[in-house]
Amino acid sequence: MPKCFRTKLIDLYAGEYAVVLNPADATELGVRQLDRVRVVTDHGAVTAIVETSQSIVKDDQIGILTKMKIDLDLKEGDEVKVLPTEPPLSIEFIKKKMDGRELTTEEITAIISDMAKYNLSDIEITAYVTAVYTKGLTMREMKDACLAMVKTGEVIEIDRKPIFDHHSIGGCPGNKVTLLVVPIAVAAGLTVPKTSSRAISSACGTADIMEAICPVTLSAQQIKSITEEIGGVIVWGGGLHLSPVDDMIIRIEYPLSIDPFSMVVASVMSKKKAVGAEYFVLDIPLGPETKVKTDDMALKYSRAFIDIGTELGIETACAISYGHQPIGRNIGPSLEAKEALEALEGKPSSSSLIEKSLGLAGMLLEMGNVARPGEGIKEARKILEDGRALAKFKQIVEAQGGKANMKSTDITLGEFSKEILAKGHGYVSIIHNKMITKVVRTAGAPKDKGAGMVLFKKLGDRVEKGDPLFKIYADHQGKLENAWKQAEALQPYITKGMILDTITDNTPRLDKVRRF
Amino acid sequence: MPKCFRTKLIDLYAGEYAVVLNPADATELGVRQLDRVRVVTDHGAVTAIVETSQSIVKDDQIGILTKMKIDLDLKEGDEVKVLPTEPPLSIEFIKKKMDGRELTTEEITAIISDMAKYNLSDIEITAYVTAVYTKGLTMREMKDACLAMVKTGEVIEIDRKPIFDHHSIGGCPGNKVTLLVVPIAVAAGLTVPKTSSRAISSACGTADIMEAICPVTLSAQQIKSITEEIGGVIVWGGGLHLSPVDDMIIRIEYPLSIDPFSMVVASVMSKKKAVGAEYFVLDIPLGPETKVKTDDMALKYSRAFIDIGTELGIETACAISYGHQPIGRNIGPSLEAKEALEALEGKPSSSSLIEKSLGLAGMLLEMGNVARPGEGIKEARKILEDGRALAKFKQIVEAQGGKANMKSTDITLGEFSKEILAKGHGYVSIIHNKMITKVVRTAGAPKDKGAGMVLFKKLGDRVEKGDPLFKIYADHQGKLENAWKQAEALQPYITKGMILDTITDNTPRLDKVRRF
Repeated sequence: MPKCFRTKLIDLYAGEYAVVLNPADATELGVRQLDRVRVVTDHGAVTAIVETSQSIVKDDQIGILTKMKIDLDLKEGDEVKVLPTEPPLSIEFIKKKMDGRELTTEEITAIISDMAKYNLSDIEITAYVTAVYTKGLTMREMKDACLAMVKTGEVIEIDRKPIFDHHSIGGCPGNKVTLLVVPIAVAAGLTVPKTSSRAISSACGTADIMEAICPVTLSAQQIKSITEEIGGVIVWGGGLHLSPVDDMIIRIEYPLSIDPFSMVVASVMSKKKAVGAEYFVLDIPLGPETKVKTDDMALKYSRAFIDIGTELGIETACAISYGHQPIGRNIGPSLEAKEALEALEGKPSSSSLIEKSLGLAGMLLEMGNVARPGEGIKEARKILEDGRALAKFKQIVEAQGGKANMKSTDITLGEFSKEILAKGHGYVSIIHNKMITKVVRTAGAPKDKGAGMVLFKKLGDRVEKGDPLFKIYADHQGKLENAWKQAEALQPYITKGMILDTITDNTPRLDKVRRF
Repeated sequence: MPKCFRTKLIDLYAGEYAVVLNPADATELGVRQLDRVRVVTDHGAVTAIVETSQSIVKDDQIGILTKMKIDLDLKEGDEVKVLPTEPPLSIEFIKKKMDGRELTTEEITAIISDMAKYNLSDIEITAYVTAVYTKGLTMREMKDACLAMVKTGEVIEIDRKPIFDHHSIGGCPGNKVTLLVVPIAVAAGLTVPKTSSRAISSACGTADIMEAICPVTLSAQQIKSITEEIGGVIVWGGGLHLSPVDDMIIRIEYPLSIDPFSMVVASVMSKKKAVGAEYFVLDIPLGPETKVKTDDMALKYSRAFIDIGTELGIETACAISYGHQPIGRNIGPSLEAKEALEALEGKPSSSSLIEKSLGLAGMLLEMGNVARPGEGIKEARKILEDGRALAKFKQIVEAQGGKANMKSTDITLGEFSKEILAKGHGYVSIIHNKMITKVVRTAGAPKDKGAGMVLFKKLGDRVEKGDPLFKIYADHQGKLENAWKQAEALQPYITKGMILDTITDNTPRLDKVRRF
């Protein structure tokens, strides 16, 4: 028995389709909070989740939240029919994954498709994300999730083929290589419409870094026209609905600061497919504190990306890179932007940044036949050193709406800063990536662009007592103090003497560790 | 740098403290959706989660959702100070549990305490619930969770000691025993302020059943005065804030239809403590489709309840009961209410219902020294058979606001019904509890009081082709059809011939199964 309501628009975002009923109407319909109703309008019907409110809606009024208002093109006071309906079957499949069982292709597809139709609530999506985090996905499930996600998104059709792309699965702080890789590849004649993400669990994503230089929130049309005109962009992909389901998953991952690997494959590949990528180079940082911790895992996941690439018609090559310590010396949006721009300008830079960027760019150049096999790095180095990469980068920045002729000295760092000094001498034997990330996030990154850290010492460097180890930057004094306190507690640096132990009594004490 | 806002009240329930900012204000504060702010008012300060909206709040206005409005006693247009703040540390502990690690007492306490302060969002609480579901809690963690939950709730002080209580951990459909156990125990002179729950994953909870007879949503003051006057009640515990954290957890469990065991111990015991229970009998149904599937598990969890009981000063005894098939013959709120009332009235009833109820009531009578050791059941039977239990039940119903002199014939069943007939002959060898529950829920339970199922055959009964196996009831024709179709597909009954196999060729085919 459907019941008729007049809409009342409520401009509040909810990840799902949600409606607000007053308790009497809810009882009459036989539904309670978090149950489902089917809402039938002149523009179609959707399933929505029920919230109740004593006063926001009157009798026979139904509150419609933003997302649903837009998608159903509803106006204030429109008449809609409402009837109770069952929760989607995909909730059963989410529970099946919670129980650790493998999902069939149909089941995975049903979950993704219900998410795309805004049929699952935050609670249900979180249960899915947490279940995948705790129980994992098999390769087959990942592939199915990826294919299902591609089908739900919008695509950007760029009329300049073939299209190249690059991505790093992250986990290694300071990884601003995209700001070098893209301009080198584009300067060599390749087409690279690079959509990147903001930080989920890291200190900053490529989009956060690029945003310290120029706007990154561009429309699909802008991305298309700039790429067709000058060969590439470096933009934020999150606002483009390339893979709306992935964006929903990322929204859930953000407050939890998680980024489960089995989600990453589908997340990355669905977005690459959406921009029409045909050639793709993936960077997999390998190290004790990155997402990929062992050679075996790196090989396994390379295989997953390559397999799914094949399935999607994307020729994929993976670079397993050194991830035991941050890339370069700067971490945080503005600091990384500055370091990348300095490297493009030919100023003295960190070899880890230069060599990693050239390695990845070289792979793209060879894939695109603009460098002979084995000569990609050489060619990339030439493009970097003769200034073509810098020129192309400036062109990209200006096209995206940034300042013309942007220089590294134009970038503003955090107003407040503090150095941390070594409390003893020795050699740097461990730099904890995760602790560095925590400290930088506490300092305000990725939201505060000026927040970050500069490393003065890297692995193997000699340290004397009182030497500056690193410097924390922040936009706010309070956050600097908090980050500094946290750095004191977390001790991201460990230094050891070259003599690891001295025998002065009968007890050997190997691994005598001195913390910064 | 705090920023001042004027409040705009938004009457919308959110499980957490939530505020709505317009995007410009959010950017100025350096926060984004799902980040935290500290809201400082004249009546105290709380941490709230940020939602953003273009139009619901103007510049310098902050939208305040219901829960927070009440707790901080805010009025429209009040001035509040807002500043960004860090997410609570307990999110780290939730992630630790997601990684399968044991939490310390301090960590569990921090999670429960942040929930009680409305500091965790639905996303974060769901991650906790899902992590506990997938990774479990140790006995120690359960005990800590329980003690922490007791500390966060309100208590009902009843001046009639000692206080007895009873609970079933469920999983066995048709378990309406509380409607017999409580009046028997109270008629024997014991004090039993029974707070019960609504269905989470089952077809109906005791509160749903009792509600088919009389109101169950009573205030703490009403529960206290009725119990003090006549010895007991059977009410819904959910609205009483006895364990608000448990209510939050149940809210998350409801759409997912889960009820993880490690949550059940803390959930049950925290609510028993809140009503001041000193003696407690727990029913643990054991069977392949109940929550407890093996003898070992039953013993392990009995130990957990008894240990935590000792810790809380509640003398606890556990009854491991037969849970291979539904208790009695009726499932669904009205049907179970009717069956229980018939049993109290002395009408012919199912022996499983009578014997189980007398067993549990007998344990309470012996604990309370109103029956000699070993004579509890005998005494309970006397109270049931001589009508004292019925009289006490009627007194309770009337005190709770129900009809005076309520009879089983006064209860209305679902208007629509349909019988399912056996498709072959044999003996009932399996009745799938879970499938029965699914069919009854599809028929509309627990929301539709009249929805349910009556079983004509139980385990071991002889079935001829065409015999009615069970009958489905519903309040709505559509739901009846859906439930009937589901019953056809799920086949909750399995019958076998007494001759399990016949050798007619060379292939023995043991376990030849005939489905209804």
